[in-house]
Amino acid sequence: MYSDETSPDAMSPARLGHGAHVVDTSRSPHVRLRSVPLESVTVRDAFWAPRRRVNAERTLPSQFRHLESTRTIDNMRRAAGKKDGDYAGMYFSDSDIYKWLEAVSWQLAGRSDPELQRMADVVIEELADAQRDDGYLNSYFSRERALERWTDFDLHEMYCAGHLFQAAVAHARATGATTLLDIATRFADHICDTFGPSPGQRVAVDGHEEVELGLVELYRLTGIRRYLEQAAFFVESRGRGLLGRPYDRFGPEYAQDHLPFRDLDAVVGHAVRALYYNAGVADLCAETDEPGYRVALERLWANMTSKRMYVTGGVGSRYEGEAFGEDYELPSSRAYTETCAAIASVMWNWRMLAFGGEARFADLMEWTLYNAVLPGLSLSGDEYFYQNPLQDDGRHRREPWFGCACCPPNVARLLASLPGYVYTVSDDALWVHLYASGSVDTVLPNGQGVRVTQQTEYPWDGTITFGMGSAGRYALMLRIPSWCDEGASLTVEDALVPEALVPGSYVRVERAWQEGDTIRLHLPMPARYVEAHRHVAEATGRVAMARGPILYCLEDADHPGLELRDVILPTSPALVRVEPSDALGGVPLLRVPAERQSADEGPLYRTREGEELRREGVEVTAIPYFAWANREPGRMEVWVRVS
Amino acid sequence: MYSDETSPDAMSPARLGHGAHVVDTSRSPHVRLRSVPLESVTVRDAFWAPRRRVNAERTLPSQFRHLESTRTIDNMRRAAGKKDGDYAGMYFSDSDIYKWLEAVSWQLAGRSDPELQRMADVVIEELADAQRDDGYLNSYFSRERALERWTDFDLHEMYCAGHLFQAAVAHARATGATTLLDIATRFADHICDTFGPSPGQRVAVDGHEEVELGLVELYRLTGIRRYLEQAAFFVESRGRGLLGRPYDRFGPEYAQDHLPFRDLDAVVGHAVRALYYNAGVADLCAETDEPGYRVALERLWANMTSKRMYVTGGVGSRYEGEAFGEDYELPSSRAYTETCAAIASVMWNWRMLAFGGEARFADLMEWTLYNAVLPGLSLSGDEYFYQNPLQDDGRHRREPWFGCACCPPNVARLLASLPGYVYTVSDDALWVHLYASGSVDTVLPNGQGVRVTQQTEYPWDGTITFGMGSAGRYALMLRIPSWCDEGASLTVEDALVPEALVPGSYVRVERAWQEGDTIRLHLPMPARYVEAHRHVAEATGRVAMARGPILYCLEDADHPGLELRDVILPTSPALVRVEPSDALGGVPLLRVPAERQSADEGPLYRTREGEELRREGVEVTAIPYFAWANREPGRMEVWVRVS
Repeated sequence: MYSDETSPDAMSPARLGHGAHVVDTSRSPHVRLRSVPLESVTVRDAFWAPRRRVNAERTLPSQFRHLESTRTIDNMRRAAGKKDGDYAGMYFSDSDIYKWLEAVSWQLAGRSDPELQRMADVVIEELADAQRDDGYLNSYFSRERALERWTDFDLHEMYCAGHLFQAAVAHARATGATTLLDIATRFADHICDTFGPSPGQRVAVDGHEEVELGLVELYRLTGIRRYLEQAAFFVESRGRGLLGRPYDRFGPEYAQDHLPFRDLDAVVGHAVRALYYNAGVADLCAETDEPGYRVALERLWANMTSKRMYVTGGVGSRYEGEAFGEDYELPSSRAYTETCAAIASVMWNWRMLAFGGEARFADLMEWTLYNAVLPGLSLSGDEYFYQNPLQDDGRHRREPWFGCACCPPNVARLLASLPGYVYTVSDDALWVHLYASGSVDTVLPNGQGVRVTQQTEYPWDGTITFGMGSAGRYALMLRIPSWCDEGASLTVEDALVPEALVPGSYVRVERAWQEGDTIRLHLPMPARYVEAHRHVAEATGRVAMARGPILYCLEDADHPGLELRDVILPTSPALVRVEPSDALGGVPLLRVPAERQSADEGPLYRTREGEELRREGVEVTAIPYFAWANREPGRMEVWVRVS
Repeated sequence: MYSDETSPDAMSPARLGHGAHVVDTSRSPHVRLRSVPLESVTVRDAFWAPRRRVNAERTLPSQFRHLESTRTIDNMRRAAGKKDGDYAGMYFSDSDIYKWLEAVSWQLAGRSDPELQRMADVVIEELADAQRDDGYLNSYFSRERALERWTDFDLHEMYCAGHLFQAAVAHARATGATTLLDIATRFADHICDTFGPSPGQRVAVDGHEEVELGLVELYRLTGIRRYLEQAAFFVESRGRGLLGRPYDRFGPEYAQDHLPFRDLDAVVGHAVRALYYNAGVADLCAETDEPGYRVALERLWANMTSKRMYVTGGVGSRYEGEAFGEDYELPSSRAYTETCAAIASVMWNWRMLAFGGEARFADLMEWTLYNAVLPGLSLSGDEYFYQNPLQDDGRHRREPWFGCACCPPNVARLLASLPGYVYTVSDDALWVHLYASGSVDTVLPNGQGVRVTQQTEYPWDGTITFGMGSAGRYALMLRIPSWCDEGASLTVEDALVPEALVPGSYVRVERAWQEGDTIRLHLPMPARYVEAHRHVAEATGRVAMARGPILYCLEDADHPGLELRDVILPTSPALVRVEPSDALGGVPLLRVPAERQSADEGPLYRTREGEELRREGVEVTAIPYFAWANREPGRMEVWVRVS
């Protein structure tokens, strides 16, 4: 898999002009699904479009102000010798700048936004000035710490580099400019020169994975093969105990340094590290094919989704080490479930989806987007959750920024790049992974042009109408979500199609299309109960409510005076009424005829007498989990007792 | 409450000869119950006596060897300039020596053990040599760190001092020798000189409470009032943010530094710190009366026992910060429940009991001893638990020693001092708090001599026979445990007594006794189910099994091939059979006709269909929780699902 030979192809303008692929699998040799660039997709729906507008108009500008007021950008000016004073913030806060730049870049793809453009240009200029002559760039290791670079691999130098690479790739793809890319490739070259298996090079890995996927994307953009090989080198070097000391506290599992990747069989340690790692390895597999890695990726996915994932799709059970727990260790109020870990899961699932077009990856990506990423951001677009508990007493509130501010720009870059996750193409087919009003205008690998529109009220309504804007014989691959376990139907020009609609798969609809043909997919969305595996201790005797791709919860704001922990839901979700509302930006509410248990305090433990506690009828209202904590503080419950 | 005036009464030989009171309330002005010295009590039962023998013959000698092999005692030799090399171990490992010395001292009370005596003498001599001329003694702050003493109050200097004081008091009371006491008082004087409210003194508190109770006991032994005042000063100074920086990570609650003691209303932060603190404040209240403190102690006890305590009696829910969690935050497999915290709870409850003789404190003390302290020690007496989960997959095993070795000598000192917890006296009454064959021979405060024997198979059988060995009119106060909620009976000379036997109280049996009179208390012990408050998330739909004062659990060793998490207990505990056995040192087993649920793996989450899972009958065997993990590794469950 390694090669000492590098192929320093010059960057080709053609590649830069190739479009703003969020993860560019358009030429990857080992995938089935190929990305389409951001510019070819529009999302003009009532759900995501307003959020993306808030992201552009409020979130990104406010984040720039935070980066300035927290002196994060000043760290760069300080590294350039233009400002004095102490270094400010966490040792890895350069990465906040990079994630923000990546977000701004995706936002600029195919659109003009002079204000964002100006902010980005300011920042890129500071980066250029801060970069050392040898290409090294990290503001923490400047001035008084300039001699300490690459001495402690728990200090995230490569992690920051990886985010720089992702930002630079996004910026180049979206704007065609190479100002940021030049900085990135100089740093990448420095890293490739410094670390590797050759004599005179050092063998090391970073405590926090991220550089791997940044390098693969840098390779995809530039064609410079040594970046790909460097990513492979870092993956192959991990799991051999190189990290040593800094990881004593949580053990080598913390940074996935306990076993070589191909021997991993469970997601362990720091959740964001683990999933960035998996995403990076998946990127590598798309370019180089590596059966040992692919099999390990599948094992890790199976372990995560069958044993170590919250019903939200969020992951990382433990505050201690921001880490995955043991199998079925999924505490509700002490759920850590970092917003960044959910984003990392989306990134990883998207890459897994590309290999074979298996719907389970898109299902989980969608579920995680709505129910684990989105809760990380306030409806106002300027406050964030770091942790995302499934039960709370009202004290966990979103904050405008954090000392460790990894999550805010991470949410922003995902929202900015979202259109890139809606469609892919394969030889003769357009794949639809997410449902949202809008359109796509692209060319299939076989040369067939496709223009398709979507019209839907998804995620609140399961009817999606596709309008075929280009004639020709090709296929539409439509995802039948796994939650849609009965009643899905599909019509082409009002005629029911015979294709089987299997939940958790794509239905292939191939025709010789005429311009103006319409397809209507109907995915019924009754309220339903989700139950957990019987070994999830805190979910015994409880269910979570869901409708379509949206997880629901109970919140105090709708239930003054009611102790939510005493609510008992009716046996059947058929009694749950779905009611449109203007609340919380306009979300359907679930109204449930439930019971409340006798609410006297009672002792902590007592001999069980078997007496039935008093119950009385009470109507409760469930709201989408992503929308909780946007009103007055109060208790929130995802898992609710059921009769 | 403060006084600048100190009363440097000379130590009186009479006080030293007063007997080995474990916590000496014999002359405390504000208590109802007065301690009796260790020498006046014998415990000759089949439960505790063998454990105490193992403690003396195996545990304590093996701990001495650990203290030597880990170079913990060498740290003292190094401080004295007799050994070179680096300091070894945790910065507070002096305290391990002190707790071990305290244990050895209690063991020597009224008994000769030349071997233990010799080990103690070796250690005391090293301490004497290591002590500085000004009385300061801490081996970590010697040599290269000599100038750093009292600069960082998170480094446990006073915590170690407190354990030295407790050890010295025990040693003096038990042996009459002042070798260790002289060291302790010199250090105490140094602390009293250094810290205080007077000009030239420093105002500070230690990050880890412990010195407070050590100082009060030092006062009780020596009569030197400034030690008491110093304890009061430290209590009064805490909760005012003096600790600052080191506590950023967990917040000031970690060391109970967020509020003055009298304003506390919930047990928070590091559990061992919190409960040593409470014990120290209770000691202070016994000597000085301080209504604000007493009320706060009651609030803290109410909060702990009604919201933040495991069914084992163990406390401290979180790995993060070894801390109490929020109300009802009591995870089973991630229970931290440090053995030391359970011991601290016993210490605190014993002091609370002294105030008014309320049985709830003795009930909890007994329950905690059997079900939270004892699990910390292997049946073999030389392996220890630090954490005590209520559910485990078999990977949590006792270890011979720890890098942070606080728990092992803590268990040893409690076992060594156990006879001191069995009885107290009040004006005209002998109080029996724990049931165990043996005897007491003491004098009531009113001058009446009492000799009483106990004969019982407790905790396996609830019949206890008391033999009155001394004539006269006095009362016996017998505890009717709160678990004994029906059928308790009491006979005097085979005649049923009319006194009401109220669970959770003491029955007063006052007669003009004849030598040879017998009393028979019968406490029925059917197996029972204990259920938790409905807000304890992991206990929903589950019960714990108990019998008498013993909590039971299921363990894999008795159930080859059975997934214990799939066991469902029958609705009524009346079906549970109690069966004597020779297993695990001879414990009655509980045999339960239960069911197992269909054991296919299944997905992590699925839409609830309401279908009944397959069940089949299966007999399960429960063992005392304290005895788990003494056989082959395997799963253990306290909370079991119930029909």
